[in-house]
Amino acid sequence: MPQPLALAFDVFGTVVDWRTSIAREADAFFAALGHEIDGAQFADQWRGLYQPAMEECRSGRRPYTRLDILNRETLEALLARHDIDPSGIEDAALDRFARAWRRLDPWPDAVEGLTRLKVRFPIVTLSNGNTALTLEMARRAGLPWDTILGAESTGHYKPLPQAYLGTADILGIAPGALCLVAAHHSDLAAARACGLMTAYVHRPQEYGGRIAPDANLAQDWDYRADSFIGLAGQLER
Amino acid sequence: MPQPLALAFDVFGTVVDWRTSIAREADAFFAALGHEIDGAQFADQWRGLYQPAMEECRSGRRPYTRLDILNRETLEALLARHDIDPSGIEDAALDRFARAWRRLDPWPDAVEGLTRLKVRFPIVTLSNGNTALTLEMARRAGLPWDTILGAESTGHYKPLPQAYLGTADILGIAPGALCLVAAHHSDLAAARACGLMTAYVHRPQEYGGRIAPDANLAQDWDYRADSFIGLAGQLER
Repeated sequence: MPQPLALAFDVFGTVVDWRTSIAREADAFFAALGHEIDGAQFADQWRGLYQPAMEECRSGRRPYTRLDILNRETLEALLARHDIDPSGIEDAALDRFARAWRRLDPWPDAVEGLTRLKVRFPIVTLSNGNTALTLEMARRAGLPWDTILGAESTGHYKPLPQAYLGTADILGIAPGALCLVAAHHSDLAAARACGLMTAYVHRPQEYGGRIAPDANLAQDWDYRADSFIGLAGQLER
Repeated sequence: MPQPLALAFDVFGTVVDWRTSIAREADAFFAALGHEIDGAQFADQWRGLYQPAMEECRSGRRPYTRLDILNRETLEALLARHDIDPSGIEDAALDRFARAWRRLDPWPDAVEGLTRLKVRFPIVTLSNGNTALTLEMARRAGLPWDTILGAESTGHYKPLPQAYLGTADILGIAPGALCLVAAHHSDLAAARACGLMTAYVHRPQEYGGRIAPDANLAQDWDYRADSFIGLAGQLER
């Protein structure tokens, strides 16, 4: 197996635990408003609106729109489903909650593993998160990216091929020299179809212990590890 | 003076000493070829072709083209002026020399100063260097950028307004909340015209002790320091 020249990381679910973090922020948000809504359930519902919102852009029905904006829109839609009128909530509070996706906690191995991987490989994001979102998250969580790339730098949301190929192009390397690290089989499958190398990292708690929705898309990925530290051990061989 | 929300750095000349580094690489390149050409003079001549090459893109006569490519083109043109036929040189050697701009040494205070500034402020590049160039330079020199932005992420070379305004837009902050840190008055003047804050860092050795070509454009900048460490001291007040 040839060594990659750079590692590109999916972020939501792979590097950070969105569900626990959003649930915590949702609990606080609804408690302050006096609503009894389960934070973890709200997190799952909000995440459920993520792919349809990006699909509007992927399909070309809407130009590329930053995830910060999509998150605010899907939050308002989801509040309405819970019979909460967003216009009755202070704009700054809504915006702060919409930006909860900037304040996600890393999985316990993430910072140590990335720091170790960075010694030998350039480590970049290949995320659907926009740059400002991913930068604020990185500073808060201590994620030592060499640079932030992904949907915003390519103008295309994953799993469109342009997101993967455009990232390799910006890095000035062949797609086959770039390895996507992700906890999602659908993401890895799309990267492999573009010629990228693939590293699967198992994150069984991403959905609170439930099976990942794309588990049926599993393939024999180039690398497979239970943590970034385990991946580092494999790549350093 | 309000505090900025982020610091954006010019790189060539402000963070790294391009002249000494290119002179060193040129000396080695020409020695290997058996040519007697002064490295420092060659560095100045190469730098002299930098603005005209970017101007082709700024003017719209040519679409945005990465600096790595412009550097290779201007290298070949400059070799021809020295009566050296580039086609007589191995392509890999030419490419390695063209990419000498990825291997520039930082000024002595740069890494310590950036590390200190990063504690309080997001630090990003706002450079005409393309992402891959700036990333390789950062890894080699230990420059701890939060992310790499600039010409490639905005599609426009400085001093076009789009380069400054686009960088603030990607960061999700108002232009007035972004502070450009640069050793060049012309760069700072263009940033100020876009509403950015400005911090001048004096780099008297950028041109080997000669006066900077844009010294006549000096203004009363928001901050003025002799090093990044000095700038950190002012911003921490």
